[in-house]
Amino acid sequence: MPSTDHPVPFTADDYRARMTRAAEAADAAGLAGVLVAPGPDMVHLTGYRPTADTERLTLLVLRAGHDPVLVVPALEAADAERATGSPALTLRDWTDAANPYTLAAGLLDAKGRFGISDNAWALHLLALHKLLPDTSYASLTEALPMLRAVKDAAELERLAAAGAAADATYERILEVRFSGRRESDVAADLAALLIEHGHSQVDFTVVGSGPNGADPHHEAGDRTIEQGDMVVLDFGGLKHGYGSDTSRTVHVGEPTAEEQRVHDVVREAQEAGCGAVRPGAACQDVDRAARAVITEFGYGERFIHRTGHGIGVTTHEPPYMIEGEEQPLVPGMCFSVEPGIYLPGRFGVRIEDIVTVTASGGRRLNTTARELAVVE
Amino acid sequence: MPSTDHPVPFTADDYRARMTRAAEAADAAGLAGVLVAPGPDMVHLTGYRPTADTERLTLLVLRAGHDPVLVVPALEAADAERATGSPALTLRDWTDAANPYTLAAGLLDAKGRFGISDNAWALHLLALHKLLPDTSYASLTEALPMLRAVKDAAELERLAAAGAAADATYERILEVRFSGRRESDVAADLAALLIEHGHSQVDFTVVGSGPNGADPHHEAGDRTIEQGDMVVLDFGGLKHGYGSDTSRTVHVGEPTAEEQRVHDVVREAQEAGCGAVRPGAACQDVDRAARAVITEFGYGERFIHRTGHGIGVTTHEPPYMIEGEEQPLVPGMCFSVEPGIYLPGRFGVRIEDIVTVTASGGRRLNTTARELAVVE
Repeated sequence: MPSTDHPVPFTADDYRARMTRAAEAADAAGLAGVLVAPGPDMVHLTGYRPTADTERLTLLVLRAGHDPVLVVPALEAADAERATGSPALTLRDWTDAANPYTLAAGLLDAKGRFGISDNAWALHLLALHKLLPDTSYASLTEALPMLRAVKDAAELERLAAAGAAADATYERILEVRFSGRRESDVAADLAALLIEHGHSQVDFTVVGSGPNGADPHHEAGDRTIEQGDMVVLDFGGLKHGYGSDTSRTVHVGEPTAEEQRVHDVVREAQEAGCGAVRPGAACQDVDRAARAVITEFGYGERFIHRTGHGIGVTTHEPPYMIEGEEQPLVPGMCFSVEPGIYLPGRFGVRIEDIVTVTASGGRRLNTTARELAVVE
Repeated sequence: MPSTDHPVPFTADDYRARMTRAAEAADAAGLAGVLVAPGPDMVHLTGYRPTADTERLTLLVLRAGHDPVLVVPALEAADAERATGSPALTLRDWTDAANPYTLAAGLLDAKGRFGISDNAWALHLLALHKLLPDTSYASLTEALPMLRAVKDAAELERLAAAGAAADATYERILEVRFSGRRESDVAADLAALLIEHGHSQVDFTVVGSGPNGADPHHEAGDRTIEQGDMVVLDFGGLKHGYGSDTSRTVHVGEPTAEEQRVHDVVREAQEAGCGAVRPGAACQDVDRAARAVITEFGYGERFIHRTGHGIGVTTHEPPYMIEGEEQPLVPGMCFSVEPGIYLPGRFGVRIEDIVTVTASGGRRLNTTARELAVVE
């Protein structure tokens, strides 16, 4: 699949559009602007990823009606200039002799309320606030949770490519031996396969066999996988800067009738969750649709986590598919739908696809078979 | 050197003493306490390094007269409990259903002023301040710059081991070919040698040949090193969690009289800087001593950076040897003494050792020859 392995490069226009959208969203939310620190927000909005996040101030200032400005240390200006999004913004560099906060403060509204990246350093926030004591701040998670939630076409292409690579990984893991090997061995196989299929980073490789599968937070341990085990697989990472995340549950040898039944319930719940995805539905509707199926079959108490989370330049981000989240779904949003049933001390089942909201419904970015696969 | 390659493990008592010292220093500075985020501060104070620094609150609260408390996500509590410093503190974990900020706020003085790690997330600071609007905060760099500056014996042992490994790297690099190879090739050699000598992390490998040596911020590039080049080498990283950082300037073939003279001046300046190290001297005295020599020989305008910086669990931290820094030197402080002369478009010279303050003066942790070495 050459198109997925060499995605069309992002352009300055892509980043310009994202920055404009962010500034307008801030304005609509009553904020004077958005202060963006190095990390996922900055990567999404500018394509710029400083080699290190340090005490030297690097800050993107977005305000409706103003050109975006990126404040950078002079030593890193050449690096920042090479970022794809840099033609869409004004670079303002500062040398060691200058006070970067005076520079940044000059770009702000002295009485404004600003959204600021969750991971911005306290050092920088405190220094800005000291210079502008009448400003106030809210974390972007609180103020603009959907900042990165709606993906554009170029981002969707990358998420689809990451999903295809995760799917190829799953197909290949079905061929390896499970029985008699440790969970951590299978996890290492998953990691190697993700890399082989173009991932630059592996974020998690859950292999939860037998009773370990009943703990949704179990990663992979020393337990030796045995004949008769259910095994929850949940893995993902970044490819071309965008995330993958998929889960399938497999069985070593033939499953019992109960194991098959529990798996069927989760599969039906996952189908129902995906079926609930359409523009205008609330995030919580996706959770409710999946949960209703599991509850109907009597396992409601055993579905102990939310149904899904967003994905993009990170593998976990808003929007969250959870009761109480009334945020309407918008075309371009991407998130997981991953119901599960966890029977303590016995086994667990989870099935997960990334789904993107389309004009008329939802489209899965993971398409491997969801039937209970039998492995050796 | 088995003693350097297997340092005596830190104990819970080491961490208890550091936490007590930090709480007392905060109290003496008029602070209600110290809020420590994952990163260098937390590593130094507890030995705990969470696998990732995320939106889930992990926070160490230190207050004079109170036991240290580490707030951690329940999922990471087992990990935190394994940290060497954990017997010296109380763990308070929180589950996804709980509000971690309510838990943390309960540990604070509702009207207090707190020092907070520079790199603490804005998300966490804003959430705490929202719950306790009468609290105020200052970054630790501002409020307690010397928090990690005085090293204990176990830390000094590690810094000495890291220095010895850097010295061994320098001895070995003198044997490689410089002429006809790119700077980046020699930089790769330096990195490999640091790893071979027990570093777990390489932070920088500067190879500044000819005119590139005149830019103190140059790292290593594509330039091919030629016969007759001066070459500034400046490299370091972490070994057993503590930093190394040393510079020597070498010459490819025989130096000219001018090159030798400039090198002699820097060597004398470095000697003078090290000679100024003693308890009670101010940081700026070290800078002044080194700078006076360079100025005396007419190169004052060509020494364009401060004389040194502290080193510990990071390779750059307070105290800074710079004009205006009146902080008195205290036994156990460790920092670089690294004067240089930079002749734009021609060449540069820098000589750097890590020095620790002893009861009576200073002791170098780098001891390789400081004469201008001739390489091939």
